[in-house]
Amino acid sequence: MKNKFVYFFGEGKADGNGQMKDLLGGKGAGLAEMTNAKIPVPAGFTITTDVCKFFYLNKEKLTAEIQLQISQAVKKLETVSGKKFSNVENPLLVSVRSGAKFSMPGMMDTILNLGLNDKVVVGLAEKTKNPRFAYDAFRRFIQMFGNVVLGIGKEEFEMVLTKKKDDIGAKLDTELVQSDLQDLIGGYKKLIKSKLGKEFPQDPKTQLQMAIFAVFKSWYNSRAETYRKLNKIADDLGTAVNVQAMVFGNLGDDCATGVGFTRNPATGENKFYGEYLTNAQGEDVVAGIRTPQPIVKLAQDMPGVYKQLRDITDRLEKHYRDVQDFEFTIEKEKLFMLQTRIGKRTAQAAIKIAVDMVKEKLITKEEAILRIDPEQINQLLHPILDPKVEKKVIAKGLPASPGAAVGTVVFTADQAVEQGQKGKVILVRKETCPDDIHGMDAAQGVLTGRGGMTSHAAVVARGMGRCCVAGCESIKISEEEKLFKAGDIVIKEGDWISLDGNTGEVIPGKVATVEPSLSGEFGQFMKWADSFRKIGVRANADIPRDAKVAKNFGAEGIGLCRTEHMFFAQDRLPFMQEMILSDTEDDRRVALKKLLKFQKEDFKGLFKEMDGFPVTIRTLDPPLHEFLPKNKKEAEELSKIIKIPVEEIMAKTEALHEFNPMLGHRGCRLGITYPEITEMQVRAIITAACELLKEEKIKVVPEIMIPLVGNVSELKDQKELTIKIAEEVIEEQKVKIQYHIGTMIEVPRAAVTADEIATEAEFFSFGTNDLTQMGMGFSRDDSGKFIKVYLEKKIFADDPFKTLDQNGIGKLIEIGVQKGRSVKPHLKIGICGEHGGDPESIKFCHKVGMNYVSCSPYRVPIARLAAAQASIATSVTRDK
Amino acid sequence: MKNKFVYFFGEGKADGNGQMKDLLGGKGAGLAEMTNAKIPVPAGFTITTDVCKFFYLNKEKLTAEIQLQISQAVKKLETVSGKKFSNVENPLLVSVRSGAKFSMPGMMDTILNLGLNDKVVVGLAEKTKNPRFAYDAFRRFIQMFGNVVLGIGKEEFEMVLTKKKDDIGAKLDTELVQSDLQDLIGGYKKLIKSKLGKEFPQDPKTQLQMAIFAVFKSWYNSRAETYRKLNKIADDLGTAVNVQAMVFGNLGDDCATGVGFTRNPATGENKFYGEYLTNAQGEDVVAGIRTPQPIVKLAQDMPGVYKQLRDITDRLEKHYRDVQDFEFTIEKEKLFMLQTRIGKRTAQAAIKIAVDMVKEKLITKEEAILRIDPEQINQLLHPILDPKVEKKVIAKGLPASPGAAVGTVVFTADQAVEQGQKGKVILVRKETCPDDIHGMDAAQGVLTGRGGMTSHAAVVARGMGRCCVAGCESIKISEEEKLFKAGDIVIKEGDWISLDGNTGEVIPGKVATVEPSLSGEFGQFMKWADSFRKIGVRANADIPRDAKVAKNFGAEGIGLCRTEHMFFAQDRLPFMQEMILSDTEDDRRVALKKLLKFQKEDFKGLFKEMDGFPVTIRTLDPPLHEFLPKNKKEAEELSKIIKIPVEEIMAKTEALHEFNPMLGHRGCRLGITYPEITEMQVRAIITAACELLKEEKIKVVPEIMIPLVGNVSELKDQKELTIKIAEEVIEEQKVKIQYHIGTMIEVPRAAVTADEIATEAEFFSFGTNDLTQMGMGFSRDDSGKFIKVYLEKKIFADDPFKTLDQNGIGKLIEIGVQKGRSVKPHLKIGICGEHGGDPESIKFCHKVGMNYVSCSPYRVPIARLAAAQASIATSVTRDK
Repeated sequence: MKNKFVYFFGEGKADGNGQMKDLLGGKGAGLAEMTNAKIPVPAGFTITTDVCKFFYLNKEKLTAEIQLQISQAVKKLETVSGKKFSNVENPLLVSVRSGAKFSMPGMMDTILNLGLNDKVVVGLAEKTKNPRFAYDAFRRFIQMFGNVVLGIGKEEFEMVLTKKKDDIGAKLDTELVQSDLQDLIGGYKKLIKSKLGKEFPQDPKTQLQMAIFAVFKSWYNSRAETYRKLNKIADDLGTAVNVQAMVFGNLGDDCATGVGFTRNPATGENKFYGEYLTNAQGEDVVAGIRTPQPIVKLAQDMPGVYKQLRDITDRLEKHYRDVQDFEFTIEKEKLFMLQTRIGKRTAQAAIKIAVDMVKEKLITKEEAILRIDPEQINQLLHPILDPKVEKKVIAKGLPASPGAAVGTVVFTADQAVEQGQKGKVILVRKETCPDDIHGMDAAQGVLTGRGGMTSHAAVVARGMGRCCVAGCESIKISEEEKLFKAGDIVIKEGDWISLDGNTGEVIPGKVATVEPSLSGEFGQFMKWADSFRKIGVRANADIPRDAKVAKNFGAEGIGLCRTEHMFFAQDRLPFMQEMILSDTEDDRRVALKKLLKFQKEDFKGLFKEMDGFPVTIRTLDPPLHEFLPKNKKEAEELSKIIKIPVEEIMAKTEALHEFNPMLGHRGCRLGITYPEITEMQVRAIITAACELLKEEKIKVVPEIMIPLVGNVSELKDQKELTIKIAEEVIEEQKVKIQYHIGTMIEVPRAAVTADEIATEAEFFSFGTNDLTQMGMGFSRDDSGKFIKVYLEKKIFADDPFKTLDQNGIGKLIEIGVQKGRSVKPHLKIGICGEHGGDPESIKFCHKVGMNYVSCSPYRVPIARLAAAQASIATSVTRDK
Repeated sequence: MKNKFVYFFGEGKADGNGQMKDLLGGKGAGLAEMTNAKIPVPAGFTITTDVCKFFYLNKEKLTAEIQLQISQAVKKLETVSGKKFSNVENPLLVSVRSGAKFSMPGMMDTILNLGLNDKVVVGLAEKTKNPRFAYDAFRRFIQMFGNVVLGIGKEEFEMVLTKKKDDIGAKLDTELVQSDLQDLIGGYKKLIKSKLGKEFPQDPKTQLQMAIFAVFKSWYNSRAETYRKLNKIADDLGTAVNVQAMVFGNLGDDCATGVGFTRNPATGENKFYGEYLTNAQGEDVVAGIRTPQPIVKLAQDMPGVYKQLRDITDRLEKHYRDVQDFEFTIEKEKLFMLQTRIGKRTAQAAIKIAVDMVKEKLITKEEAILRIDPEQINQLLHPILDPKVEKKVIAKGLPASPGAAVGTVVFTADQAVEQGQKGKVILVRKETCPDDIHGMDAAQGVLTGRGGMTSHAAVVARGMGRCCVAGCESIKISEEEKLFKAGDIVIKEGDWISLDGNTGEVIPGKVATVEPSLSGEFGQFMKWADSFRKIGVRANADIPRDAKVAKNFGAEGIGLCRTEHMFFAQDRLPFMQEMILSDTEDDRRVALKKLLKFQKEDFKGLFKEMDGFPVTIRTLDPPLHEFLPKNKKEAEELSKIIKIPVEEIMAKTEALHEFNPMLGHRGCRLGITYPEITEMQVRAIITAACELLKEEKIKVVPEIMIPLVGNVSELKDQKELTIKIAEEVIEEQKVKIQYHIGTMIEVPRAAVTADEIATEAEFFSFGTNDLTQMGMGFSRDDSGKFIKVYLEKKIFADDPFKTLDQNGIGKLIEIGVQKGRSVKPHLKIGICGEHGGDPESIKFCHKVGMNYVSCSPYRVPIARLAAAQASIATSVTRDK
């Protein structure tokens, strides 16, 4: 098997098999597997991903040995199919498709009808007795080849086509007759000659070689690179090339082509699901240019073929133990399966399918849990359009990807990116294409005028978890005028609309949204997850409203309450500012006293909401100048309220200016230099806990957390002060409560001296945002300028502020955990940086032995799932 | 010996001995030692430092047991001296002095003549047949007791005294006769009564108890705390109290009191050295109120006593194996030694004495080296007044502390601190007192009108290494009018003067200074140091002039050349700015090309100066905005030169603004995002080295150092680029040179992943400035605001930017060294942060196994000495 670069499949036998995804790509392995399973698949061969790698290593050339193996495969294909390249009577036509290990829909370019030329087209016309089909196929082939292989813009071909249609007064492509198509072929060939100074290649073998090279080259086109980056697919996998004998769904009305899923990919319902187009080629379905028929109609049109399709796809689902996404073509009532793969699905569908399959005993609970990408369930955790609100529906399309989207309308992907930085946008397109991906990513939702449930827009939006209403044919979109019409109603760029991805409804204006709930299959699934999970999940929440969301999502406590957020409210900020602007401790105490009552009520609200769950409260962290007026106007307004002269406010603000506020007078440094601030906060926390116990019998054990500790002496100082005040309050309140004092580990020095710090701390919470900033020397606010280049140049695999840098910052965490526990073996350790909601980082937290992660309320279920997966993965590893 | 709190000494026998400094303090141990050595010392007892600690632990009270031991000691002293407290005929008078483990001159308060009261003074007058002396002693005692023990301001007593003098038309205290003194005593007592509502205590035992308490309390007075902070003396040592029978140097002209050194403490010359005042008490000498006689005059006045003094002090020097600083009193031609201690000396003297004593075989070379505080030799490394310049000397005082000082005149310590932040100042005072210490520290030099070589100003200035001209009696200082007169010449506040601490000369205006050299004893001493030293010493130098200084001071290479400093010069900055303001790589390359020729010449200059020694060059490090105009005016000027519109310059500057530039777009991040900058720098470095080899046969092996690496990929990227360019240049130049590529370790992540980084690095250089900033999360530019509080609150023992935080940042360094060497056992490792010149930090560098330290040129000899001490200390530890 050494140096085997080409794998043949056909006549119920394949060189490869379904396990060989690395080498044959997902599609190639699937074709081999299906062939071996006696599923009707057009014969063909797969050129391995190794060849792609050699291609790049070998200055974009193929060795003689590889060329030879390809020729031999072509010969075998000719034998098996009984057709021949360049044979006018019985021509072999092939498709050339890319196929990487991971499915990258629409990313890689496909060429159909390869093998056609001026002579063969005549033969094909005769053989099929359908000259229009033959010339249309040739026309399409030249167009595709010209674009994908020769690199001429699609719009150049479109211009030739449009001109022809204008000339004869046609609106649709189907109005073109044979002679029109022949004219068009001439026009296309002229275009190619004028662009490249070379003729369109007539020799099928040359066509094939060029097409194979083009597939390899497309591996590094920018759409492919973007997709891989978005989906974290490695660049060095390479793609395979699948060359397969063409079958035709467009030879007449006894032909068809279609795509389908064994279960509904939007809802997960266990119902055969798909679409087809009669007399069409596959790409007509996917491109969304014509809106296809639902598959049930096939049962009426061709009942025998429909039954065969149902049998085959059922076998496929059982075989692969997962939902299948398949493509088929019916040539003269004969069924060919072109492809099958694991079906992409919405989060909602993924959960339902997983739960159903456990109930059907097709998979285990562990498998069900490992099968859901935690990131994906994010889709289920965001608001939906409020069902109670009356909505003025102006149009209805296909519910292509669920959820709600509310935003201002934009008509180009670039606009979506630009406007999307300022606010929420909805991308409206006649249809989307791979060039639009960055815009879809930037938008809240996507609305298209054409295309079905498997159109590009629908597939990509579901993958991204974007709400999508597709094929909304009742609206008229003018991308040039930057507006769309729904009957008389005109929606212009910048106007607000709302989309309901669950119903396909389009509503003008902003519709209110409501929180989703974890009920039904989702609730069931999360319960299973919790049963495997070993580490706790808490939420970062500063106000009762957030705490409530978190608790509903299953948070087992608050891991980080940032008290400073409480001071930014309109009714508190002036007192905070007064405190900061005070020159003496006495004046500061006066202002702090005013803040005390607010703080106490804030904490009572939080404690009450969490009803006995632990609540970790961090003392004041940000540099004080963050609270002060940003300009003279704000200073003047403040001056009126607190009666301090504008000049004095400005001068103090200036004096508090810092060169590097991130490394400045903040965190525990505030509490150490202004102990009265810590005193006030501790007083508020403990009083709140005491009062709540007395008033409502709610037992709270507050966890007071000192930020930015780098040295045990800092913690000691603040701890002594905290205990002093806490004991004073407890004595005043005449009630017994418990409290804990711990620290953030977010300064690198704290991690490497964690053994010292642990002697004074009752718990650690890793503040990985700051630990990343300081540990890497990266200011998050400034790194945007160069981190992009770092990702492009592959200096970083990931943005370290999104996914924990396990190799570096993770090392500091490991040192911190190990040193901390060396002194206190049962030290409670958690994480409260943004990484606490990132699945990869959660797995790391599990691995190093943390007790809990804390993340934003909306990410709590994601964290629960990721934690469960980490447990299962670990026990699987252990079992091995 | 358990629970022994009081140690007696007298009659040639002492309870304690010279080793017991911890318990008895330096002074107490010295008195015990001298007593045991049969040296004539007035009898007395020492209350231990433990009592001071108990005093603070016990709410500032003493236990009955301690009180009892003190009473017993008083009784024994009465027996031994044959005198008695409160005995009118034969009264016992005592001195009460503090005495900590380390000498703290002038810091702790002393009380003399304790035991006097209304009755005893009468007896003393009769016994001494000198009523004036007795009443003067009583008057002084009340004044001192009132100030030190009762806390009444000195100036309050001064006012009473001044009024009395005015009343009788006296100018000097000595003009007061007995009745005047009696009036004064009445006035003082009234003052005390009116201030405290209590009478001056008449009972000697009460006086003693109060005085002891006052000494203990003075341990925490602010002068003492400042001194300890400046001299890094721990706060918890406490002080002992020495109670000693009084002897009187002021009973008449056959009495005297004096101080002296066994060798000259300013020059180190082996010559008996001291001063005395006839008919005076000890404090008259130290306070500098009267200018004393040189000690040689004593040989004429009292030859027998002089000889006895010489014998005793010679014995003391041999006994202690070091220069002795002693105090003595002659009462009626009878010599008493009051104190002896290791003499403080100037750096110059310290070196000479150490070298001399080695030659005299009194000490070993190792001892000589360990005896010099590396910080102290700083004094010898700074410029002196240019001897070739003709100087207009307007006055001449005592050369109390060597060196040169050039600055503007200020008349108060507070002014010195304030003005000293803006420029160089010279503090001019009639005499200095402990309250002036902060001003002396802030000034370049000190000039006093009164006081001798052992006056407060002289002693403190020598300790601090400040230039001092003391006792300059020919000038008339008016602190009120803020001027001084030297003959007709008036020097006002803000005028420039120059002081020569080696000659005592005062010169108006700014006198040029010249570099010192390492010759004579100093050169000898440094050679000895080098013979023990194990690690290399390099310098941080950016320009040939600095490199030259460094080489003269013994630097063995350049450890850090900061290339950015080269771009700030007038003739380069516009090109640098042009480069930064360019929008495209091409434009940047045009500007960089202009900079290339400057850079190349800079490096040639450096390489030539270092003549084959290694030179480590760091590629561009600071954020680019540091080079851009700071305001509109600067932008306008730049606009004229580089023809870019002001608005564009301002906009680009704004765009480059960063929230935390320290953690921003700088270091290797520049070279990665703008590879053309690295290219230009490497081209300049390698071309310079090649040309120098061809032109002057100087063989240079440049070490190219990549800054701010946190991830091995960063180093890899820059290393590949460096090699590419270097090889290109070498090929162009047709000459073979070697070069090394290494990295700074200054990002915490780099330290914890040093094993990965070492795979790509040929050397490491720890950038401890940034490592401290990031590792501790402290911006050096901003930390001033809170680091003071941290030092006050003892959260930090030292400023981590001055002395390496061995416990935390040191841990990161240890991890970095260990991981780096785990991959490359012989990896060359150095340090180039400012800590590379700090003796404590150098010891750490030696300990963790670094190959070299690199520091500022002027600190090279300090580093050489510290490195030698580290070696000796390690081998001593090993030998044990």
